[in-house]
Amino acid sequence: MARKTNDRRAFLGIAAATAVGCAPGEKAAVEEELPSALGKPVSAYGERAKFETAKRLVPDLKRPQIGSTTTPLAETEGILTPASLHFERHHAGVPEIDPAQHTLLVHGLVERPLVFTMAELKKLPSESRIHFVECSGNSAREWKTPGAGDAQRGFGMASCSEWTGVPLRVLFEEAGLKKEGKWFLAEGGDACKMFRSVPIEKGLKDAMVAYAQNGEAIRPEQGYPLRLLLPGFEGNTNVKWLRQIKVVDQPYQAKDETSKYTDLLADGTARQFTFVMDAKSLITHPSGGQKTRPGFLELRGLAWSGRGRIERVDVSVDGGKTWKAAVLQEPRLPMAFTRFRMPWEWDGAEVEIMSRAVDESGYVQQTREELTAARGPNSNYHYNGVKVWRLMADGSVKSV
Amino acid sequence: MARKTNDRRAFLGIAAATAVGCAPGEKAAVEEELPSALGKPVSAYGERAKFETAKRLVPDLKRPQIGSTTTPLAETEGILTPASLHFERHHAGVPEIDPAQHTLLVHGLVERPLVFTMAELKKLPSESRIHFVECSGNSAREWKTPGAGDAQRGFGMASCSEWTGVPLRVLFEEAGLKKEGKWFLAEGGDACKMFRSVPIEKGLKDAMVAYAQNGEAIRPEQGYPLRLLLPGFEGNTNVKWLRQIKVVDQPYQAKDETSKYTDLLADGTARQFTFVMDAKSLITHPSGGQKTRPGFLELRGLAWSGRGRIERVDVSVDGGKTWKAAVLQEPRLPMAFTRFRMPWEWDGAEVEIMSRAVDESGYVQQTREELTAARGPNSNYHYNGVKVWRLMADGSVKSV
Repeated sequence: MARKTNDRRAFLGIAAATAVGCAPGEKAAVEEELPSALGKPVSAYGERAKFETAKRLVPDLKRPQIGSTTTPLAETEGILTPASLHFERHHAGVPEIDPAQHTLLVHGLVERPLVFTMAELKKLPSESRIHFVECSGNSAREWKTPGAGDAQRGFGMASCSEWTGVPLRVLFEEAGLKKEGKWFLAEGGDACKMFRSVPIEKGLKDAMVAYAQNGEAIRPEQGYPLRLLLPGFEGNTNVKWLRQIKVVDQPYQAKDETSKYTDLLADGTARQFTFVMDAKSLITHPSGGQKTRPGFLELRGLAWSGRGRIERVDVSVDGGKTWKAAVLQEPRLPMAFTRFRMPWEWDGAEVEIMSRAVDESGYVQQTREELTAARGPNSNYHYNGVKVWRLMADGSVKSV
Repeated sequence: MARKTNDRRAFLGIAAATAVGCAPGEKAAVEEELPSALGKPVSAYGERAKFETAKRLVPDLKRPQIGSTTTPLAETEGILTPASLHFERHHAGVPEIDPAQHTLLVHGLVERPLVFTMAELKKLPSESRIHFVECSGNSAREWKTPGAGDAQRGFGMASCSEWTGVPLRVLFEEAGLKKEGKWFLAEGGDACKMFRSVPIEKGLKDAMVAYAQNGEAIRPEQGYPLRLLLPGFEGNTNVKWLRQIKVVDQPYQAKDETSKYTDLLADGTARQFTFVMDAKSLITHPSGGQKTRPGFLELRGLAWSGRGRIERVDVSVDGGKTWKAAVLQEPRLPMAFTRFRMPWEWDGAEVEIMSRAVDESGYVQQTREELTAARGPNSNYHYNGVKVWRLMADGSVKSV
């Protein structure tokens, strides 16, 4: 944490105010307020405090099994998303799967088709890695109506967890890939048979069949008991409730790679198989819907990229005229949320603040205008423009 | 993941067995078993699957507010402990604290005594770091009765979380430490006024007043809304429900640093203020109480040290005669759990397996015999001997 002299002055401004009412002597008023009775007993499984009410936003859905919820990004800290608040996107609801009955079939263009029970999978060489998952439809409203959402509504279909599972290459090695095997299909165990085609290279590079999330079994909404994890690839390809991997010679043009999850360009052609989520960032404190006040603030936000590590996050507190590099929280992990912070003194005048991520590939997050110029007016997926918040003189924060 | 040729052979042994019953053709039986109805709807706050039953072990306590519970280490993956399963140790139960009413008083030998509300604290420069917390009474039974516990009973008073909060040095800078200030007292808001004396250097180095854990507000059992975090120091000093920090000139000889949390040596003298938790490790898969079977196994475990990063974990699968370095999961973070893994083929003969951690200070985890020789027969805290599990010919795993 590097705090400058002028920030220190501002910071002292706060502290001095809070010191009012505190006697300088030995006894402070707070010392009289201790509870005198024993608190709650120990317990087998803890819950959050009753005062905490952060929740996923459940939209008004015709069928509540088919749709999405969002993570309250402005109410999370650090780089991890509590599993209970991980965003959801289901195409046929959350199936209830008994892990004792669940199997993963690996077949198609392989020498030895294999079926694994969950117990067998868990005995195989495993890895744990912290990665974000982001729906490629995240921030879709920003294409048409910038300012429609706050951090949760506009950007909350992205979450970050520690995932544990078996590298897919281990399963491929055991099954023996035939040389005609160029893609694989991953199919989920939900009622709609959600499946996607994925290049075999991704499977060999860093894909994982994940059985745990943040230390415990993966949650039902995230694919219990097994999901595919494709670090940095759009969320939809990270197939949940994973039941089969079939090695094939070409993509299968599934519904979710033709009618959906393609990017219609201005000339009428569509980008297809745009797997990688480009670098994105977002100031979460302060952000849309919050109230703040003049004086010292620590600006905080999240940045992530499907191409690897976040190398730099620039922050502007003057509407994009000048930029300054934020402090990046270590460790910066590839394809994971990176928390950035910048001390700042707000003088109370209306101002626009924003952040711009740069990843290790050199990719620089673009403005909404640049993005729209490149992709045209028809886009629905893969929005990653610079997000602008306007601090109003009354301390409210508006999405613009 | 580095898998050797002989491990590969063993691994193939498993895979071949699992392939039985799988037709090599296009259609496998599993394809017929899809659910045909929509699953559960989206939800505001998720819960774990009903099939998952890992829990903290609640002992039979005369007063259930005063005691401890343990993390099921053999049922967790990766390096994070789910907050619901973080071990507990309470001296007067879990107080219910309204964060809107909670304040932190910083006073004593400072220039400017200060009181911070939670809202004020959260605006200050913050950091997030992944650290373990371990009760110095963890594994106490191993001193007297090795083999009494499994991974949870014997070692589960250690957990690891991502903590977010304000570095204590920021508060000290604002309050202005007087030069006579050599220690500080940290006091909790529970009914017993739990407090500990801590050297001021630790406060300036890496102490944090933490308000978040694994992305959300810190849990009630972990000190909601605010706890002291002293990376690597014995759990008891990481004062929960933190309400005041008082800078003083010497330790105050609190109950928990005289009658408890001292180490009685063979000569009748006691070690006091033995803050730092020495390096420790534990094979969790397989471990006491589990059942396993011959063939390929990935040995997995956890290692940690209060002195910094884990540099190496040696594993023996022949009763301690020979040792081999395990693969350490990256990133290896200082004062955090480190996951280690080693592929192994068990031939089914009775054998003793164990792990030995080496940290970046060069400290090498010792055997129970070496530890007992050094500390004498009266110890109750700070047990960190090498843990031995015996694999029995019937596949059961015994603690020895």
